[in-house]
Amino acid sequence: MERWGEHEREIVEHPGAVAIVAVDDEGFVALVQQLREPTRRRLLELPAGTAEPGEEPLATARRELREECGLRGGEWRELAAFWTTPGFCRERMHLFAAVGVERGEAAPAEDEELQLVRWPVGEIPKRLHEIEDAKTLAGLLLYLRLPAEATGPG
Amino acid sequence: MERWGEHEREIVEHPGAVAIVAVDDEGFVALVQQLREPTRRRLLELPAGTAEPGEEPLATARRELREECGLRGGEWRELAAFWTTPGFCRERMHLFAAVGVERGEAAPAEDEELQLVRWPVGEIPKRLHEIEDAKTLAGLLLYLRLPAEATGPG
Repeated sequence: MERWGEHEREIVEHPGAVAIVAVDDEGFVALVQQLREPTRRRLLELPAGTAEPGEEPLATARRELREECGLRGGEWRELAAFWTTPGFCRERMHLFAAVGVERGEAAPAEDEELQLVRWPVGEIPKRLHEIEDAKTLAGLLLYLRLPAEATGPG
Repeated sequence: MERWGEHEREIVEHPGAVAIVAVDDEGFVALVQQLREPTRRRLLELPAGTAEPGEEPLATARRELREECGLRGGEWRELAAFWTTPGFCRERMHLFAAVGVERGEAAPAEDEELQLVRWPVGEIPKRLHEIEDAKTLAGLLLYLRLPAEATGPG
C-alpha cells in the first residue's frame, strides 16, 4: 500500500521487464506460444521476460532471447519503453528490436512450456489480428515503422 | 489462486477494460494526463476505463469517453482486443477508434484528476516517443494504419 495525497493505493511491485522483436538471418520474426493461465488460452507473444536483480534491460533481453528461442547475436536497438498497466502495476517494459540474429539451442526455464513460432516478416501486417497481447502488438507495429534498412535481411 | 496442471498461480482478476482513440471534428486526438501512482509520474494516455457489471465493451467505451473527455457521437470501430499483462492478470482490453466525435462537458469520477490534452492527428507520428503507456502506444499505432477515409476529418 502507498499513500499519495488523499489516495491510498495497492500497487503490484515488479522488477522490470523486456520484450524483443527478433528477426533472424532468414527473415523470420520469432514468436513464442504458451499457455497463459490468467487468460486460459495459449497466446502468441514476443519473447519476453523479467529482469534479474541488478540486470540492465538490454542484458535481460539478450538472455531471454537466448533462453527462450536459442537466438543470439544480431543488431539491437530500443524501440520503446512503457508501463504495461500504469493504473495498478509498476511493471515498466523495455521493447527491443534485434535483427540478423542467429539460431542455436534454446534453454527455457523449467516452468516454461514454450512453442517457438516463426513468421516471415512480410506476413506481419496481415497477421496482426492473430495477436492478443498488448506488448506484442505494440512491438510488431513499431517494428513495421522502422526504416527499411533497420528491419533486417528479410 | 488457481491450479493449472502442475502449476499454482496467483491471478489478478479484472472486469475488463476499454481504451479509445477519439478524434474530434477539428482533427485532434484526445489524450488524458493523470498521475499514475504506481509509476510515480503523470502519464499521457488514451481515455480508458473499466467495465461496470454486465456492461458491453462498446458501451463502456462510449461512457468513459463522455465522462473523461466530454466527447460524444462519432463513428466507432473496434481496432483490437488484447490482454494487457497475460502473465499475471486477467485484464482483457478492447481498443476502439471513434472519429468525428463532438465536444461537450466532461464529468470525470471524483477520484480522477485528469487533464485533457489534444494533439493534431498529423503530429502523432513524430510524438510517439512521448507515450509511455502500452495501450496508448498500441492504439495510436493501429489508428495510424487505418485507411485514410477511416481516420476522420483531420
